[in-house]
Amino acid sequence: MVKIGVIGYGYWGPNLVRNFAETQGLAVACVADLDLNKLELVQKRYPGIKTTTNFEEMINDPNIDAIAIATPVSTHFELGMAALKANKHLWLEKPMTETSAQARQLVEEAEKRNLVLIVDHTFIYTGAVRKIAELMHKGDLGEIYYYDSIRVNLGLFQRDVSVISDLAVHDFAILDYLLGKQPEAVSAVGTNHFPGTPENLSYISLFYESGMIAHCNVNWLAPVKVRQILIGGSKKMITYDDLEPSEKIKVYDKGISFTDDPQKIYQMRVGYRAGDMWAPQIDGSEALRVEGQHFVDCIVNNKVPLTDGKLGMRVVQLIEAATRSMSEHGRSVKLNAAPMWRGSEVA
Amino acid sequence: MVKIGVIGYGYWGPNLVRNFAETQGLAVACVADLDLNKLELVQKRYPGIKTTTNFEEMINDPNIDAIAIATPVSTHFELGMAALKANKHLWLEKPMTETSAQARQLVEEAEKRNLVLIVDHTFIYTGAVRKIAELMHKGDLGEIYYYDSIRVNLGLFQRDVSVISDLAVHDFAILDYLLGKQPEAVSAVGTNHFPGTPENLSYISLFYESGMIAHCNVNWLAPVKVRQILIGGSKKMITYDDLEPSEKIKVYDKGISFTDDPQKIYQMRVGYRAGDMWAPQIDGSEALRVEGQHFVDCIVNNKVPLTDGKLGMRVVQLIEAATRSMSEHGRSVKLNAAPMWRGSEVA
Amino acid sequence: MVKIGVIGYGYWGPNLVRNFAETQGLAVACVADLDLNKLELVQKRYPGIKTTTNFEEMINDPNIDAIAIATPVSTHFELGMAALKANKHLWLEKPMTETSAQARQLVEEAEKRNLVLIVDHTFIYTGAVRKIAELMHKGDLGEIYYYDSIRVNLGLFQRDVSVISDLAVHDFAILDYLLGKQPEAVSAVGTNHFPGTPENLSYISLFYESGMIAHCNVNWLAPVKVRQILIGGSKKMITYDDLEPSEKIKVYDKGISFTDDPQKIYQMRVGYRAGDMWAPQIDGSEALRVEGQHFVDCIVNNKVPLTDGKLGMRVVQLIEAATRSMSEHGRSVKLNAAPMWRGSEVA
Amino acid sequence: MVKIGVIGYGYWGPNLVRNFAETQGLAVACVADLDLNKLELVQKRYPGIKTTTNFEEMINDPNIDAIAIATPVSTHFELGMAALKANKHLWLEKPMTETSAQARQLVEEAEKRNLVLIVDHTFIYTGAVRKIAELMHKGDLGEIYYYDSIRVNLGLFQRDVSVISDLAVHDFAILDYLLGKQPEAVSAVGTNHFPGTPENLSYISLFYESGMIAHCNVNWLAPVKVRQILIGGSKKMITYDDLEPSEKIKVYDKGISFTDDPQKIYQMRVGYRAGDMWAPQIDGSEALRVEGQHFVDCIVNNKVPLTDGKLGMRVVQLIEAATRSMSEHGRSVKLNAAPMWRGSEVA
Repeated sequence: MVKIGVIGYGYWGPNLVRNFAETQGLAVACVADLDLNKLELVQKRYPGIKTTTNFEEMINDPNIDAIAIATPVSTHFELGMAALKANKHLWLEKPMTETSAQARQLVEEAEKRNLVLIVDHTFIYTGAVRKIAELMHKGDLGEIYYYDSIRVNLGLFQRDVSVISDLAVHDFAILDYLLGKQPEAVSAVGTNHFPGTPENLSYISLFYESGMIAHCNVNWLAPVKVRQILIGGSKKMITYDDLEPSEKIKVYDKGISFTDDPQKIYQMRVGYRAGDMWAPQIDGSEALRVEGQHFVDCIVNNKVPLTDGKLGMRVVQLIEAATRSMSEHGRSVKLNAAPMWRGSEVA
Repeated sequence: MVKIGVIGYGYWGPNLVRNFAETQGLAVACVADLDLNKLELVQKRYPGIKTTTNFEEMINDPNIDAIAIATPVSTHFELGMAALKANKHLWLEKPMTETSAQARQLVEEAEKRNLVLIVDHTFIYTGAVRKIAELMHKGDLGEIYYYDSIRVNLGLFQRDVSVISDLAVHDFAILDYLLGKQPEAVSAVGTNHFPGTPENLSYISLFYESGMIAHCNVNWLAPVKVRQILIGGSKKMITYDDLEPSEKIKVYDKGISFTDDPQKIYQMRVGYRAGDMWAPQIDGSEALRVEGQHFVDCIVNNKVPLTDGKLGMRVVQLIEAATRSMSEHGRSVKLNAAPMWRGSEVA
Repeated sequence: MVKIGVIGYGYWGPNLVRNFAETQGLAVACVADLDLNKLELVQKRYPGIKTTTNFEEMINDPNIDAIAIATPVSTHFELGMAALKANKHLWLEKPMTETSAQARQLVEEAEKRNLVLIVDHTFIYTGAVRKIAELMHKGDLGEIYYYDSIRVNLGLFQRDVSVISDLAVHDFAILDYLLGKQPEAVSAVGTNHFPGTPENLSYISLFYESGMIAHCNVNWLAPVKVRQILIGGSKKMITYDDLEPSEKIKVYDKGISFTDDPQKIYQMRVGYRAGDMWAPQIDGSEALRVEGQHFVDCIVNNKVPLTDGKLGMRVVQLIEAATRSMSEHGRSVKLNAAPMWRGSEVA
Repeated sequence: MVKIGVIGYGYWGPNLVRNFAETQGLAVACVADLDLNKLELVQKRYPGIKTTTNFEEMINDPNIDAIAIATPVSTHFELGMAALKANKHLWLEKPMTETSAQARQLVEEAEKRNLVLIVDHTFIYTGAVRKIAELMHKGDLGEIYYYDSIRVNLGLFQRDVSVISDLAVHDFAILDYLLGKQPEAVSAVGTNHFPGTPENLSYISLFYESGMIAHCNVNWLAPVKVRQILIGGSKKMITYDDLEPSEKIKVYDKGISFTDDPQKIYQMRVGYRAGDMWAPQIDGSEALRVEGQHFVDCIVNNKVPLTDGKLGMRVVQLIEAATRSMSEHGRSVKLNAAPMWRGSEVA
């Protein structure tokens, strides 16, 4: 039985505790938070779980095997490093750290000590993303031409991170997982409509060696919530609407053809789509449950997580590059090709 | 009765003839096309309309008052200038010309001769865009923060114009009409996935002095057709889905608020929207009919069209700037502030 | 070249003339209407078509081979019989006649004279209904359990026919075509919310020997337009949304299973569906064009139309039975099994 | 603090316990179930709650003030009566009992002992239904013409109750609450497609003295889940889609008008809707939480619940009448007018 301590019981922490509590082979030993009201809530819901305001004590508790950190990103590096140095396996919320240099230090510390370091890029563990990966990796889509994502919603403003760290971070992780490749360059524009706040709207384009473009439209000021991705391939195309309850993924049996026949051009212009559409059934398991089980599996069987520290670090590198491009009004920023390698697949 | 000759009976020409034929005060005198099959079709449908393959003869026919040009853009300048020099009022398809220098010459020629020059930016005459303008111009939305448009569909490739000239051109005209202002700078990225073809996918950002950003996502390779615009204001927000049959425009009663209360942040994060929504009834008249009537009104009453040559020219300037930025991987391109003035409103 | 005369240029007549005019082998010789404004409209649109207010003269014109009747249903029998007696092939709008006895007389007259009698149940000629028929007739759906249709919209009231004759008539024809069987009994309820008007809302259930139930929900007082059909089979199920532009038909790969496991019951209760979904591409040809071509084919090649007078008569029998049941508050009304046989398939 | 014991921890029981546990003034003292696995689950989740397989002991425990019964309907009467006779307030799942005679006995027993008897018709406590009630009760809709409900989904078959008791029961309760009136007669048809199982598909029409019709389409064999209600009034109309995340209720600013103008008839036929639409914001509180709080309020302040035993009994009467009509193929079954009176509104 892996015993885990959770630091932070704010927005995301309760989801971690709820899922960890029902994960086989995992037990939540302790929850730490500075806010006593939060701890009271833990005690009411889970009378068997210890609570504390003292992070350090929990991190150094010899009965605890792993630490999960669900605090603001500015604290991730310090808390994460302390956990690793206390020889704990580490679960880090996304984004992993404020800088890629910090991310690299955590990766190296975990490797040196042979500890499991997982970054909670939850989307990678959804049935939908895993179904897309399955279709893509077996070549059904053909050559990939573009990835186009919209993540907008009406959100109260966060004061510590930009909309890129909040929303585009999902696409950066999904792209890393789907493609197994990093972009060569990034161009981003964006703005903060309110002085003194981080960017609340951004458009980010990623350029890949193959000619593929990925684009992320992220916005905290939209009147409606949208979570929609289009992926265009030479053989098939996919739409993925994460808010659609029953048909999240639609696969369109349509590649590209050329014509000079004006009549055909007309037909295609007025048509909504051509070819059959197929909506595969998606595994509806809660992603966080799958991820928790994967974390235990990695600890027990000494595996590398699918969303390991290196993936987390590459995502931070993209945030950094996008932020730099944004500050230069869209100038293309080159990325140093980071070596890519994959963690273990979910068991 | 204004007598009009139409050049080009390919994709759009039939729509012009059908609408002109039912416009009060307007009569289609002649249709010209190089393709005899097209002319045969005209004769079958409208036995009363003359047909010809000889453009020049038609342009110089003294019985004809106005010329509509619905041919490929590369021919617009030459044909349009010939029509103006023959003292004909001019209806030009969009985009107006290949270069803004050509557009300027047409504008000047029309002014010199006191002829009406309308550019067929049809969207401006839809009930939906006019309803948005009404709401915006009376201040219901407050300060405008962003305009975000998606126009994607599966189209066979055109070999002569890029996706910007084909699709983003609509947004450029709508923005000009709604805002009455030109952007200060443009940043665009895009790509052609097939050698030797124009760009088939592009992301264009327009920056305005007020801090507003407009963004256009245009793509010929999407599996589904999308025509969706979000407009965010300080008081209200709008969604406009042009493919929605009954509720094209939705107005959300929601502005922006700030908070540090983590509980409220949580509530907004999980909510889909807050505040009431209102879908005003939209005038369903066919836009081309409205525009045809406006053209007649401008000729008869010596008015300046809502979508006059100057608006058309500013749109071509934006296409040029976006194309230049695209060739430089997103580098921000400044626009020389062109003087803005408005044509007459639709009667 | 089959020459056709059209009686009635009100709501539907213009659609007939427009489609007949572009049908190969068919020419519209004359249009009759009592309203001179309507005839003026015809002349403006089709200068080559004769117009008249004199039905009889047109019916007896030896240059005319076929008559199409698009007048109120109360005139169908008299006009149709006159056309048949003048040895004209006959195109009748739906519903065919006011009574099934009248329908029978027309069928017999047409048979005696070896004339083609088609009833314009347009839906049978849509790509969507023909795709459903294809799937059903090759057994993909398995045994059919139910057919559930909703046709509601906000319509101004008609004073001469009930909502059953206006809307449910489509389902009666579609069911006849899909199943090749008539129901054994009908139960209907309905009401007119305004004294002196025909029923504006009705719910009709049709019972088949196999145990299948068909249900039609028709309503002129709905705030939104809905055209939705569910078909449940032992192997697969279908949804057909006629207002959906791109995915009218969805086929669900799901039959029925039994369980006593309460956990599974729970899963199914909360699940939206199980199994893949498939949206086949649908032929988008205009149904009226297909039907016009089929009419010509039947005349020229002496075939029986898919929607011949017998199908039209069976539909009128269902309207009569439903109306009788409705007047008795839902009492089940038995139908005399009418012999079923099929017309020719569309070439 | 009201102490409650819950009998049955199957499909619905866990929802009760979870909500009761967070309801102010309410404490879950004990959970009873015959299945030890269920009880183990309770202990894991709520170490502080006692568990037992002995219903009687729990019912007679003097420390317990109220009993909630979430067992199969066939056991409701016996368990409910035992609880009342032990002087416990009673929370009963819907439908309240198998027969209206049993329901009456429970109502009388509770009245005699001055105990609170609530029937868990959860929908009445949703923000959506309460918003509809608010609009209706202040007269915004005008005279109500119809209520049209569709509740279909793919459900594994239940062996003990029909689809009427499972799904139409919601509409029966909602109608009782919205209208404050019972129908005069019921006509229902339905079928079981599998021998030996209860009806899996049913169409039920309720006739009211005012001329209003209510119709319920309930079906366990649909490929998709639908929860949609249309309500038509003389002034406005409402659609209520319970699966829509953000715009559950839409109010259409449209009454009924009459015309003989064929041009207007045409316009209405082709239009999707007329008039503005308005989607009011809905209170998103979990209905069961609101209902639990209301139960406590009724116990503490001696109030009659909104969904009291009499409402529950009237719902059972409707199930009985619909079932009888269904067995007679739709024959209209009269209802004895039961006296109507309302419980207290939610505080």
